[in-house]
This record gives sequence, structure tokens and C-alpha cells, in this order.
Amino acid sequence: MPTFAQVNVGDALPAQDFPITRLNLVKYCGASGDFNYIHWSESFANEVGLPGVISHGMFTMAEAGRVVTDWIGDPGQLCEYSVRFTRPVAVPDDLVGTTISVSGTVAEKLDDNRVKVDLTATCKGETVLGRAYAIVRLP
Amino acid sequence: MPTFAQVNVGDALPAQDFPITRLNLVKYCGASGDFNYIHWSESFANEVGLPGVISHGMFTMAEAGRVVTDWIGDPGQLCEYSVRFTRPVAVPDDLVGTTISVSGTVAEKLDDNRVKVDLTATCKGETVLGRAYAIVRLP
Repeated sequence: MPTFAQVNVGDALPAQDFPITRLNLVKYCGASGDFNYIHWSESFANEVGLPGVISHGMFTMAEAGRVVTDWIGDPGQLCEYSVRFTRPVAVPDDLVGTTISVSGTVAEKLDDNRVKVDLTATCKGETVLGRAYAIVRLP
Repeated sequence: MPTFAQVNVGDALPAQDFPITRLNLVKYCGASGDFNYIHWSESFANEVGLPGVISHGMFTMAEAGRVVTDWIGDPGQLCEYSVRFTRPVAVPDDLVGTTISVSGTVAEKLDDNRVKVDLTATCKGETVLGRAYAIVRLP
């Protein structure tokens, strides 16, 4: 875990790619209790104008958050986490699925050893989470 | 609940139809822990030569068993239940899904107030469970 003293505004967190497959979504349906058809039915998703079956926003958010929690090591030091779901993440019906690419940058050093991290999450080159940031406490 | 004395070989149990939808299967994936692709991925199911996404055999079996447990009232009096999964139950990707039709007949009166019930389960006119029977204990 980096210490508050070591960290500077502008520092990049280690970026990560996260595959998202239909299997993830079927599992997340059961784990979350959110069985909305848009997360598993191609025909329903198409009917309501989506580009296909899409990821649960909370699942995308959770995956993206790993860039922060892996950086700090201790998920218990994540104080705040906020995103806007700006674009659906379509997941094709194959074994590969899609991928979200997540990077983070130290945006601000706050009081009480807290640091604000801005996150960027893209899928096929397009931003899928807007105004995404986390506030963590460092030792 | 019928009593042992009231029941005769050849008696028909009240038949029932059970819809099976993709939503049922996605839920059963999470409930059972069986996330096999054949139960939710159209492309995978087609690739392995199935007529589409198919029901978990145990789910079909569980639904069919309701004809027996609804008849006796108390599921705790179901002593034995056995089926063979003889034909896959294909479930289309729409809100209607498919339907299994289940009927039962009293096949044998056994000792100790037990009764053997033979079950027939069909989907689109074809048998989907083979050698299906239950043994129940009646008052």
C-alpha cells in the first residue's frame, strides 16, 4: 500500500483490463438478485433498443473499483466511490465477451490522509462510467 | 391429502402444466450453482448440437415432482423420487418459454401405507422424463 506521503497528484494507478462475459452476468444475476431481462436476454435487450445484453452497472462499477482497491491493498480503506452509468456495456453471447479498460489518477490530496482518485473506464474505446472517483485513506 | 385406504391402483393424480422460461433457468443457475453454458447461452447450446438453451434436468424434475407433492399435500411424505432425463427441454428466448405437462397415476400399493406413483412428463408432445416414479407415504 502506498503511503500518503509517497503519493503525488498526477500519479497513475496501475491500469487493468477486466473481461466481462455472459457467464459473469448470469452469476451476477444470482449474486445481486437483479434478474432484469436486459442482463441475459438478447431478444429482450434488442426489443428495448439496447445494443444487446448489457452488464449490470453495479458489476461494471465493482470491477472498475478493483483498480483502486488493488492499489491500496486494503478495501476497507475505500471511503467513498461514485460513478455515473453513462453508456451501456454490451456483452456478446460468446466465451470472450467484452473488456473494460480501467485507469486511475491521483486527483487530489485531502485532509486526514485521504486521497481522491479519478477513474476512467472504457469499453471499445468509449467511456462507460462518468465522473468516476474514489476517496481512499492511506497510511 | 388422500388416505391409503382411499387410493386405488389406476387413480389419476391431478395433472398440471408448468411453464419454463429463460428467467427460471437464470434463477436456477444461481440457486443450484450449475452455470453450465447450455442453460443460458444460445450460441453455446447450438454449438454443442442442442436444440437451443435447455432446462436443468433437476429443475424439470423438481417441477414435475409438484404433481406428487401437491397431491399428498406434505412434501415430507415423499419417500423416493426417480427419473431419467431422456430428452432435453429446449427453452426459447422469449417471455413465454415452453411448457411441460405432467400427469401421474397410482401404479402400486405397497406395504407401510406407501404408494408408488408413475409420472409422465411431456414437452410439445414428447416425453422428457423416462421411468419417472415417486413413492409416497399416505395416512
